[in-house]
Amino acid sequence: MTEIERKFLVKSDAFKSDAYQKTRIVQGFLNTNPERTVRIRVNGPQAFLTVKGKSSENGLSRFEWEKEIEVEEAENLLKLCEPGIIEKDRYLVKNQDHIFEVDEFHGQNKGLIIAEIELKSEEDKFLKPLWVGEEVTGDNRYYNSQLSKKPYKNW
Amino acid sequence: MTEIERKFLVKSDAFKSDAYQKTRIVQGFLNTNPERTVRIRVNGPQAFLTVKGKSSENGLSRFEWEKEIEVEEAENLLKLCEPGIIEKDRYLVKNQDHIFEVDEFHGQNKGLIIAEIELKSEEDKFLKPLWVGEEVTGDNRYYNSQLSKKPYKNW
Repeated sequence: MTEIERKFLVKSDAFKSDAYQKTRIVQGFLNTNPERTVRIRVNGPQAFLTVKGKSSENGLSRFEWEKEIEVEEAENLLKLCEPGIIEKDRYLVKNQDHIFEVDEFHGQNKGLIIAEIELKSEEDKFLKPLWVGEEVTGDNRYYNSQLSKKPYKNW
Repeated sequence: MTEIERKFLVKSDAFKSDAYQKTRIVQGFLNTNPERTVRIRVNGPQAFLTVKGKSSENGLSRFEWEKEIEVEEAENLLKLCEPGIIEKDRYLVKNQDHIFEVDEFHGQNKGLIIAEIELKSEEDKFLKPLWVGEEVTGDNRYYNSQLSKKPYKNW
């Protein structure tokens, strides 16, 4: 599966009142190399191992493979991860026929809020809410794998 | 789960006539860092993703976590792996109440044959067949993750 995602900075808290779900996420990386990131994520009551390949040249598409695992297994694997565990709240906000995933980071990345939208094709259009700011699609610094190594507070 | 394994070089082909199973293995690594190796393996008709932690100080025990995945998924993930895909035949040889896994390497590691035995504890005893040579337990060069980066033919 290849995913097409666009990523934006968020300018205000206004998205919170529109959110239909909020979940605590704790995640770490067994590899932060952008050619083959390996992520362990505890997402509320579920956990996943996710492998992502390198981005296409325009930064829009990327190989992604995900497998659900037990939360207890994930907690053991998080102990092996590279330093820089990420904690964030993920809000889901409906936007016509798309869904925005809005991540509010904590800890070393406090102050950073990123909205991501998954599209069906590279031409797919969507409505941009007022709280959506600058596009940062394809900017490696905003990859969670990079935020775990170079957190926002050190930028 | 922590595994206790001892590893030996193999001096002759004599093990082949004692083997009760032979399976072709193709494997690659999404991370070869010994602190958190991530291995993709196609093992005959099955496939697995395996994460291993760093060895204990005496080299005998190591955290290991394994998940079965689809062969087709594994083949896609192998394409993302670091250069240095390993191909080998694994022979299983019964030895009283233990089993030796004997790996005969091909390609860049041709000429190397390694026998591994899994033990119940660090004190567990076993009979050593005549074809078993020098012990190499804990010698990083013989880790498959290292053989994929520094193959035997370049030693």
